[in-house]
Amino acid sequence: MKLVQGSVTAAKGFKAAGEYIGIKNKRKDLALIYSEKPCVYAGAFTQNVVKAAPVIWDQDVLKKGNTVHAVVVNSGNANAATGDQGYKDTETMAAATAEVLGLQAEEVLVCSTGVIGVNLPMDVITKGIKAVAPSLSESFEAGSRAAEAILTTDTGSKTIAVSEELDGISITIGGMGKGSGMIHPNMATMLGFITTDVNITQPMLQKALKKAIDTTFNMITVDGDTSTNDSVIVLANGEAGNAVIDSEGEAFDKFFNCLYEVCKYIAISIVRDGEGATKLLEVNLTGAKSFEDGKALAKSILTSSLVKTAFFGEDANWGRIFCAMGYAGVAFDPNKVDIAIESIAGTVSMLKKGLPVKFSEAKAKEVLEENEIKVLVTMEEGSESVSAWGCDLSYDYVKINGDYRS
Amino acid sequence: MKLVQGSVTAAKGFKAAGEYIGIKNKRKDLALIYSEKPCVYAGAFTQNVVKAAPVIWDQDVLKKGNTVHAVVVNSGNANAATGDQGYKDTETMAAATAEVLGLQAEEVLVCSTGVIGVNLPMDVITKGIKAVAPSLSESFEAGSRAAEAILTTDTGSKTIAVSEELDGISITIGGMGKGSGMIHPNMATMLGFITTDVNITQPMLQKALKKAIDTTFNMITVDGDTSTNDSVIVLANGEAGNAVIDSEGEAFDKFFNCLYEVCKYIAISIVRDGEGATKLLEVNLTGAKSFEDGKALAKSILTSSLVKTAFFGEDANWGRIFCAMGYAGVAFDPNKVDIAIESIAGTVSMLKKGLPVKFSEAKAKEVLEENEIKVLVTMEEGSESVSAWGCDLSYDYVKINGDYRS
Repeated sequence: MKLVQGSVTAAKGFKAAGEYIGIKNKRKDLALIYSEKPCVYAGAFTQNVVKAAPVIWDQDVLKKGNTVHAVVVNSGNANAATGDQGYKDTETMAAATAEVLGLQAEEVLVCSTGVIGVNLPMDVITKGIKAVAPSLSESFEAGSRAAEAILTTDTGSKTIAVSEELDGISITIGGMGKGSGMIHPNMATMLGFITTDVNITQPMLQKALKKAIDTTFNMITVDGDTSTNDSVIVLANGEAGNAVIDSEGEAFDKFFNCLYEVCKYIAISIVRDGEGATKLLEVNLTGAKSFEDGKALAKSILTSSLVKTAFFGEDANWGRIFCAMGYAGVAFDPNKVDIAIESIAGTVSMLKKGLPVKFSEAKAKEVLEENEIKVLVTMEEGSESVSAWGCDLSYDYVKINGDYRS
Repeated sequence: MKLVQGSVTAAKGFKAAGEYIGIKNKRKDLALIYSEKPCVYAGAFTQNVVKAAPVIWDQDVLKKGNTVHAVVVNSGNANAATGDQGYKDTETMAAATAEVLGLQAEEVLVCSTGVIGVNLPMDVITKGIKAVAPSLSESFEAGSRAAEAILTTDTGSKTIAVSEELDGISITIGGMGKGSGMIHPNMATMLGFITTDVNITQPMLQKALKKAIDTTFNMITVDGDTSTNDSVIVLANGEAGNAVIDSEGEAFDKFFNCLYEVCKYIAISIVRDGEGATKLLEVNLTGAKSFEDGKALAKSILTSSLVKTAFFGEDANWGRIFCAMGYAGVAFDPNKVDIAIESIAGTVSMLKKGLPVKFSEAKAKEVLEENEIKVLVTMEEGSESVSAWGCDLSYDYVKINGDYRS
């Protein structure tokens, strides 16, 4: 596997576009992704009971199992809590995109992100789709413009592409993402779009996506909230011409590793861009009884407001980490827990077998002054290891979210 | 039921003391409660896997089911994550208190709150217990001193007492509490101590406590964390001389209502004193399928950092409330949800049947400027109603917790 330049236009046969059409105030707000060849499609969506209209549309398309050709994304309006009209508007977005590209509506996926509870300005959007479609291009720049057009409160684009050889044939996977909190209910959401020219069946693509998401997107947290619009979509058009991946094996594993790296990169980029975040936190937990136990423990640490504020304050407060593990809903022996913190400045052990270790506060301060910090937790319940990512909680988080809508 | 003056010394036959003995820096740090008559004892404790030594002691005493005479409480040190030595120190605290009061160690309950992971200064504590015991008194002031001695980061004491007539006989229930977050892992914890002269069996006292806690202490949240030391203890010495309450019925109901009001008052006082809190939030949710569903939904709203910061910013952000309900892990029809906010300034409806209502931003601002705000949620899943309490998330929360240990 190697890194290559680009994003959603890196893989063969994918075009993209991103322009300003008038939903947001001046910034790009409409993105298109298009493949002339039909794509198998895998998707993963928010578990929130309150689902935005486009999420329902994309899930319906996934259930039907047909191939798709295009994705249309608007930012600035989430089309959530918009009732029947919201669903009709999503259908209209798909139909308008289909019309200009010569497709059926059900071959077009739709995503929206932005303010909740306001109907989409449909005349602006349908006109916008027509205006943007002619600029669809396979160029690197077109991918970059699409990556910009999906942003809301993000401070920058999140893009990556990698390539791999399968039996001497090069395949490419590129992606773009947005989100600077797990959620902003008003300028909502975490979105990920991944395109690949690999030749793969839909069930194997869905399997790879599910597995990659479980250890990447599902292991990040900014503020513990889950949006109404979260979506990760993967399109594979088969243009690489490799022997079709229709079962597990070496080719699947290689493809999975690439997809995993793309998902992980986008997921960590989102946390790094967390609202008001000053530090990226990574929990590495070993010795859990099961993956689910380890995930619950790691996320309990990263979701605790007390842990997050302690890291913001560069305070070596192992007690809060230990305590957050204790209320994670997981049974474990607290007398067999070690906790340490680590950064490029070094490692400081703080708890051994459930008892505090005397450590140098000066050294701990050095470790905590860095902006990427690992929390190393060792238990003796089993042999599972998990990694999860989060960020600190700063004054700016309160500022951004205390006065967001106004 | 009527309010009366006092706290843990309000009920007949209870003495208390609270003094400075040298654990904290200058502020009172040791409290005693004592009844010459033996007390039946009910308790409720933290669910955290990481339990402080005194919690284990008090749970052991509860299991044995014997009567007790005294409680000793220190603040400034939580005696948590202190290993075998920690448990020995708790035993020593009980034994030292027993010795000076002429009791057996297992007739003494122990609570500690403060820094985690540091062994108790046992010479200071044993000397302190001897020095404080002679000042045990039934006076109002002695109760007030005890209520002060259990505080950590609290900005003030939390005390209440009520009385009721059972068949012409007056019974009294008094209480004191501490906590200004559900947890401060370093200056830990929510504690509640309730004394009553009612004549009641242990099983009925435990039943009343469990029921009262489920709808009061268990319905508050400051930052979503659960401490290693949380404890609520009720002692009943029977000195009122009422016919013993040994089953449900009118007397039990009257007693329960008093206990409920005492628990609710202390619980809400803790939230009102939440770290950095500027507003008390109350969620009134009606139409839930079950109490558990309603509780999960109400607590999801009150735990959301996005909801809490919106209230701090006085932002009528119903989208965040709706969204937090959606990820509470409870199935419901979002198209049958109404959301409104209410304070003494009025009521503003924001969502009706899952769709946004046009409301006056100016009026919403007036409602939100108050420091006690209700969130009214109506669903159509069933007939359960729940109330839960929380607070907003302010710059000061980040400040207090970002630099707490140092």
